[in-house]
Amino acid sequence: MNGLLEVSIDGELRADGWPHDRSLQYGDGLFETMLVRQGRIRFEALHRARLAAGCARLAIHADALRIWASARAGAQRHPEALLKLQLSRGDAVARGYTAQGTEQARVIVSVFAPPSAAEIPARLRAVTLQARLGENPDLAGIKHCNRLEQVLARRGLQGSGAFEGLMASSSGLLVSGTMSNVFLELDGELVTPALQRCGVAGVMRAAALREAARAGMPVRVMDLPLQVLERCTALSLSNARLGLLPVHELDQRELVPSARLLAIAAALEPLDE
Amino acid sequence: MNGLLEVSIDGELRADGWPHDRSLQYGDGLFETMLVRQGRIRFEALHRARLAAGCARLAIHADALRIWASARAGAQRHPEALLKLQLSRGDAVARGYTAQGTEQARVIVSVFAPPSAAEIPARLRAVTLQARLGENPDLAGIKHCNRLEQVLARRGLQGSGAFEGLMASSSGLLVSGTMSNVFLELDGELVTPALQRCGVAGVMRAAALREAARAGMPVRVMDLPLQVLERCTALSLSNARLGLLPVHELDQRELVPSARLLAIAAALEPLDE
Repeated sequence: MNGLLEVSIDGELRADGWPHDRSLQYGDGLFETMLVRQGRIRFEALHRARLAAGCARLAIHADALRIWASARAGAQRHPEALLKLQLSRGDAVARGYTAQGTEQARVIVSVFAPPSAAEIPARLRAVTLQARLGENPDLAGIKHCNRLEQVLARRGLQGSGAFEGLMASSSGLLVSGTMSNVFLELDGELVTPALQRCGVAGVMRAAALREAARAGMPVRVMDLPLQVLERCTALSLSNARLGLLPVHELDQRELVPSARLLAIAAALEPLDE
Repeated sequence: MNGLLEVSIDGELRADGWPHDRSLQYGDGLFETMLVRQGRIRFEALHRARLAAGCARLAIHADALRIWASARAGAQRHPEALLKLQLSRGDAVARGYTAQGTEQARVIVSVFAPPSAAEIPARLRAVTLQARLGENPDLAGIKHCNRLEQVLARRGLQGSGAFEGLMASSSGLLVSGTMSNVFLELDGELVTPALQRCGVAGVMRAAALREAARAGMPVRVMDLPLQVLERCTALSLSNARLGLLPVHELDQRELVPSARLLAIAAALEPLDE
């Protein structure tokens, strides 16, 4: 890198590691967490579309064929797994925030043992967190690596015993859980927050919206003030790992799973694309 | 890491690099960019204080003695330099956002050639950017590694020929430049934005506030709507690399450097602590 005189890591002059990876420096990257079933990446097309949208938004130039070949190879070697794909803009070619456009994107595929049923409590509790999410339309929807808000939020959850924490944006709109999207039954209607200003457009959310429409149970995507959590009659959480899961207790209030959301979850379950 | 089956990097099963560094995954880290003069880190105490505040806020447990010994060693080897200290929470010990508290912080010190006068145009131009900064009091002030907003903002600047872009928060308050804090002369008064909701509490900003008070030219720290940029009579930018620099043209409007801000800059110049 231009003008670089030396690098030390943990006090030693060393040349290993990726000290100037821009994702490490600035969270300048994207990721996807995907389920692998029978050697196939579940909802691969939706994950690809979101990653491509993220690359376009951040102007990360990366070879999609190479990325997905790498992910598929991992899935083939571990047919039942959880797969995390990380894409960094790559090592900095110059100091400072400005991306030069000549960085070489770095693709990391980590394969984990599949989620076990034991990870999900039979009785799922969620709480509303005080911490808010910053609003930025330029970053909303994509799954980028600026995730300190989620890291802090998960910390806020520790000790509560809750499985998930629900969050509003700085202007008081319900956004999502710390690691999931939310579907509510509200005034007899199915709704989910719009994500124009903040939040991650989840792949399972997209799949659930699609299946809901197919099944004639459309979900309205709309701005929802955080207060709707006080009067919603049902709540489910979605993400690629969990599917679409009903919450049984929200802020110490009992919730009965929504028959419609359960039907959508059941319709989703066998699908892989 | 728990449940990890394999990692591939750019399509190869490899064990090098830091694929699970949490700063790379989530921007879960902090940094300081510091000037080294005559082998000493300029304003080291202020940098230390900000890094410590960041560690407290993010609950990153790191040995300050070890960190600063490492930075000082770099400064001694390169007595005139720009030094970047990066502190990652370290490699993930479990999948997901939750920090376990047992991560081993990673310290990276990169030493660069000192800034040259040629990097700073004689006539400094700034423009107001359309992009807004998300507001999050939990992250405001500290210099964390979630910097995609700045990366995108610098991209928005490209082609404009401007040296710096000024940014407002999502609620329309002036915050800072993409890489600097701002000082304004407004209605005859010196002012700088409050940074409770967003922005980085710059070390040069802190030093300038201190010197201004010492010199009997106090700067008011306050909420400022973005529109003050249309009527401020002078504007200076501050950061550790630049010092306190006057802007000559703001959004195609001529600005005359403020005598008081120039005096503060002159008072700052010889100081190292």
